[in-house]
Amino acid sequence: MNIIHIYLFGLGNVGSTLIKQILESQHFFKTHQGIELKIVGLANSRKVLTTADGIGDDWEQEFAQKSITRRSDAFYDFASSYVEVRIAVDATASKELSHFYPELVEQGFHVVTANKIANTLSQEFYDNLRLLLRERDLSFEYETNVGAGLPIVDTIRNLHKSGEEIFAVNGVFSGSLGYIFNRFSEEELPFSSIVLEALKNGYTEPDPREDLSGNDVARKLLVLARETGLKIEFSDITIENLVILDLQTASANQFIDRITELDKPLLHRKSLLQPDEVLRHLGKLDVVNKSLEVSLQVVKKDSPAGQLQGSDGFFEIYSESYASHPLVIKGAGAGKAVTARGLLSDIIKIAKSCPIVIYK
Amino acid sequence: MNIIHIYLFGLGNVGSTLIKQILESQHFFKTHQGIELKIVGLANSRKVLTTADGIGDDWEQEFAQKSITRRSDAFYDFASSYVEVRIAVDATASKELSHFYPELVEQGFHVVTANKIANTLSQEFYDNLRLLLRERDLSFEYETNVGAGLPIVDTIRNLHKSGEEIFAVNGVFSGSLGYIFNRFSEEELPFSSIVLEALKNGYTEPDPREDLSGNDVARKLLVLARETGLKIEFSDITIENLVILDLQTASANQFIDRITELDKPLLHRKSLLQPDEVLRHLGKLDVVNKSLEVSLQVVKKDSPAGQLQGSDGFFEIYSESYASHPLVIKGAGAGKAVTARGLLSDIIKIAKSCPIVIYK
Repeated sequence: MNIIHIYLFGLGNVGSTLIKQILESQHFFKTHQGIELKIVGLANSRKVLTTADGIGDDWEQEFAQKSITRRSDAFYDFASSYVEVRIAVDATASKELSHFYPELVEQGFHVVTANKIANTLSQEFYDNLRLLLRERDLSFEYETNVGAGLPIVDTIRNLHKSGEEIFAVNGVFSGSLGYIFNRFSEEELPFSSIVLEALKNGYTEPDPREDLSGNDVARKLLVLARETGLKIEFSDITIENLVILDLQTASANQFIDRITELDKPLLHRKSLLQPDEVLRHLGKLDVVNKSLEVSLQVVKKDSPAGQLQGSDGFFEIYSESYASHPLVIKGAGAGKAVTARGLLSDIIKIAKSCPIVIYK
Repeated sequence: MNIIHIYLFGLGNVGSTLIKQILESQHFFKTHQGIELKIVGLANSRKVLTTADGIGDDWEQEFAQKSITRRSDAFYDFASSYVEVRIAVDATASKELSHFYPELVEQGFHVVTANKIANTLSQEFYDNLRLLLRERDLSFEYETNVGAGLPIVDTIRNLHKSGEEIFAVNGVFSGSLGYIFNRFSEEELPFSSIVLEALKNGYTEPDPREDLSGNDVARKLLVLARETGLKIEFSDITIENLVILDLQTASANQFIDRITELDKPLLHRKSLLQPDEVLRHLGKLDVVNKSLEVSLQVVKKDSPAGQLQGSDGFFEIYSESYASHPLVIKGAGAGKAVTARGLLSDIIKIAKSCPIVIYK
């Protein structure tokens, strides 16, 4: 039996769904896979809880009662008394936490993250983190960075690692913006009300501007670009911002208060559509020309992107073997359930790769 | 640097393409991944060659001149003098070789295979092989069993391992039959001449009846069914055989000589189509009801399966997280280049998972 200690950062939509999935499947992992997953650490932005036995169904109550004020080294002190494999799971969108990944690795943690920041900081940070991981023989998994639980990162990584030249990756990179523009193209609702509903359902980032600005898709393009071996910075990406200038620097609350100001320009875009056309938010990674582009585009209703429904993401990979007909992966590309399941899949991948510890 | 010794069985379409891909990428693997792939063993059904330095571009000549008559233990004797990680790669469709996998594992070989037989023999053989692999801590990879290089097996495996319940997998499982029925539905050519062309291009199995009988798709369904945890036998599958009774037991040569006898019944099927319909060869794995079905079906031209082109395979995965909108993977599902690349990807996966050997 391999015991795995999980330290979870972020108890919002995705984090709490992940806890639920782990608690529900604990028995399955134990009996079918010889893996005992114990969530021994929980942290939100203010509080932290550690518990050697692992949390149970009453974790919310336990966290409320027994958590202490967060110190950056609270997990390290606790972890140092155990020999078990330790995995830090980042279910936040925190930039601050991303900067701690190198420290987590130095403290012997594998890292699993849904957070795209660490992979999209400077190329120098990216390369240093990987160097550190190699030195410590630790894993860093982030399949949920692109397309939630869809196997995009892994597919590109496996193609690249097997020596296949990747030419381009195009598609609807954001399940959130997929959901928003599918509805906006078909329904007679103001743009703002669709965005607010997407926010409420956990489809968008906590600040929807991260999606609407194009930054979130740009980060995904950058994650994949670097996976194909490109050395490139976030500032090299061409990004169309759907947030009007006035609201780009407002506070998060101000933005939500004034979100209806986005309606007019987007209604104008919609009014220009032909009956057989819809709006789609597309990302284009041209590996050959080192060009990364994020924009809102008009596409035919009967094109692959035009046919998308719900919060489906859609990815076309062009490579040596898939040169004329791309490799296509499509499916729910956002939402707390698929994202949490993707994190869990990354956790299991690491658990499986660790040699079984024989306890004294 | 990790040195990997590859022992390749099968020097036909896929095997020789794999050799080409490895030789072309050797430098890339060495400098970017710290992996030195050496093909130290080659075998076809009659001859075998071993070479400590690994084969080079002149391998065909070398094999012709230096290979010796195949003995079942030729590779074992050679391998026993080396400490390097050894991977046996099966690029054949040989039933006989499949029965040797347990022996290969006992001799310390990891196994990578494009051959579906071992995974579709009795459940007892399947379970015993896995037990042996666990005991020896060796890997068995077979992503190319379903959809050539498309990430189908891995996706289903990762979903299942992360505790996700899989409900069904439907689609065009055979790039070969995809190619054949795409062309047959659209072009005014006899069925037999399209099959012969597919055979010539390496799209079908060496004996096209393996495809046309539905057995090949049935094997793929069984590989996936077992991946989701079902215990089930090949004989439980409902299979439509497109080969007329008379030709089902003929020799391979007789079958090719008389293949035009298939034309009439299939032309009849085609004549019944409405203008907006096409024929598609579909596989259906219903995990919930333990039902596996292979059949030729009429579908609408504008349905996802109806829109397929070339030798594209098409897979819809329904599961807890992808219950109403399936996870879809589409792309070239047959052909020597994508299959060889899939084998190479499996080889690299194993190479990466092996601890670096420190040489004395």
